[in-house]
Amino acid sequence: MLGLGIDIGGTNTKIIVADDRGALVKTERFATQPELGPSDFAKRLAASVSSIRNSGMKIDSIGIGAAGDVDPEKGVIRYSPNLNWRNVRLTQPVEKLTGLPCVMENDANMAAWGAFIIELKGHRCDALVITLGTGIGSGIIINGELYHGATGTAGEAGHIIIEPEGRVCNCGARGCLEAYCGSLAIMKRASELIKDRGAFVEKYYKGGAFNTIALTKAAEAGNAEAVKIWEETGTYLGRGLVNLVLVLNPDYILLTGGVSNAKKWFMPYVREVMKNQAIATPFSRVKIKASDNPELGSLGAALFGLSRAGLKP
Amino acid sequence: MLGLGIDIGGTNTKIIVADDRGALVKTERFATQPELGPSDFAKRLAASVSSIRNSGMKIDSIGIGAAGDVDPEKGVIRYSPNLNWRNVRLTQPVEKLTGLPCVMENDANMAAWGAFIIELKGHRCDALVITLGTGIGSGIIINGELYHGATGTAGEAGHIIIEPEGRVCNCGARGCLEAYCGSLAIMKRASELIKDRGAFVEKYYKGGAFNTIALTKAAEAGNAEAVKIWEETGTYLGRGLVNLVLVLNPDYILLTGGVSNAKKWFMPYVREVMKNQAIATPFSRVKIKASDNPELGSLGAALFGLSRAGLKP
Repeated sequence: MLGLGIDIGGTNTKIIVADDRGALVKTERFATQPELGPSDFAKRLAASVSSIRNSGMKIDSIGIGAAGDVDPEKGVIRYSPNLNWRNVRLTQPVEKLTGLPCVMENDANMAAWGAFIIELKGHRCDALVITLGTGIGSGIIINGELYHGATGTAGEAGHIIIEPEGRVCNCGARGCLEAYCGSLAIMKRASELIKDRGAFVEKYYKGGAFNTIALTKAAEAGNAEAVKIWEETGTYLGRGLVNLVLVLNPDYILLTGGVSNAKKWFMPYVREVMKNQAIATPFSRVKIKASDNPELGSLGAALFGLSRAGLKP
Repeated sequence: MLGLGIDIGGTNTKIIVADDRGALVKTERFATQPELGPSDFAKRLAASVSSIRNSGMKIDSIGIGAAGDVDPEKGVIRYSPNLNWRNVRLTQPVEKLTGLPCVMENDANMAAWGAFIIELKGHRCDALVITLGTGIGSGIIINGELYHGATGTAGEAGHIIIEPEGRVCNCGARGCLEAYCGSLAIMKRASELIKDRGAFVEKYYKGGAFNTIALTKAAEAGNAEAVKIWEETGTYLGRGLVNLVLVLNPDYILLTGGVSNAKKWFMPYVREVMKNQAIATPFSRVKIKASDNPELGSLGAALFGLSRAGLKP
């Protein structure tokens, strides 16, 4: 059984083929060009799907993950800031053009499904999957099912307020978790503490960029500012997770996305915040794991497509 | 079909009889006397149940709501600060003594179930029920089912942190929602603003006490301090609800408990906070209602007992 997983980004659209266990079989990319409009996009997407099928692969279903406000029931992108699209019906034209069953979800929900199937082997449980990337998204698994909420937007964990009147977030609000623990926010804070970025990169990540990888390498090498930034990040993330655990009482929290690669440096501070909770039971139960699989979003989309088409898993 | 709903309080235990639509048929009370120990309590409870059945009522099931950390799967009170009990197995001895199927939940979960069946007619939906009493509890309905989480403690909304390093809560932490919007917290704040409590009660609630009812009556009469306190309460509550809506994306929020009777005075500020959210969809969808049924906890216990015994609803 093979599913197509599609991740629509503002610049590129990634198409992967995965089997029903989440093994990556093939990856392709094409330029999204959202300015050409959704129906042009759907045609180019269908052409890519055709070429994959013409190469001899028997594809059973399509799953699409899109950043922004997605209506999974109707297969509509209500609003995507990245694509600058509003109220775009996508699954229906894709089904028409390809003849394959197609589902769409917010990208964080697809990553959550991928993490649930791949990292937790799809065992029935309650799990919260947090994608720590440029921004922060999350998806919720309840009793082994993806939880949508009333409008398909459940799990906007990046925008829970952890510091009232705090830093301004990309969403326009103040004090969101994303404004402290997304990689953009982390590197903004790093720019405040580290004055000579060029020298910093030269010393800790030669040939690389001033990003969270550099910050992790610097922490490894004992740089005090880098250690301090990860400590702050962990403390803020812990604060957000405390609220999420109190509400959701999950079996697992899975951290995914680029920032989670620095887990060694921020997790001790997350645990420190959690340790000090008066209501102890949910905190002693929850297991926190980090996944370094960078393809959970598109794999999750492929797996969710297979699952919704009534196919395994 | 008749169910018994039992609400174990630190001082009194309330037993009600309800039909399967949530109509209250009978109410009784006995002194809890937790210091006599759980097995003595179970015997006195069973005696009360017997006397109700001997009066000619055909009882089908028992539901117990208890404040504190409850394991609904095992029917165990893990810890109840009110009763000062730890790891007390309760449903099993009650089943043995009465011969009736018995379930137990945290009291906020039972109130949530009661609100769901009675106020929302049990229509399949996602709902968050918040009990604004002395403290704050909450229960979560997902797709028409009570959501427990991994340890039965999901929905500890009273202890999400809305003001880091803020007011000390009864739980020992700082800045919990309960430390701002529970009636104890509200009246503590009122004591700061209203210096002569005696005169205040005399003027606004003659013969009553210095409590949230007095504060509501004072607001009705135009007292500026009372209006200000409800404004603050609404703003803090709005802050908590924003985080909860972002995570859970519910169809409904139901406010119950004594404080919700002041909805006219705090709800405009809740709505003000919600109106200003960048991620608009979940906020435009959620309907916020308040219930003035003071028996949702025990009715919910009775209804949940019937439901779990495989009986209606």
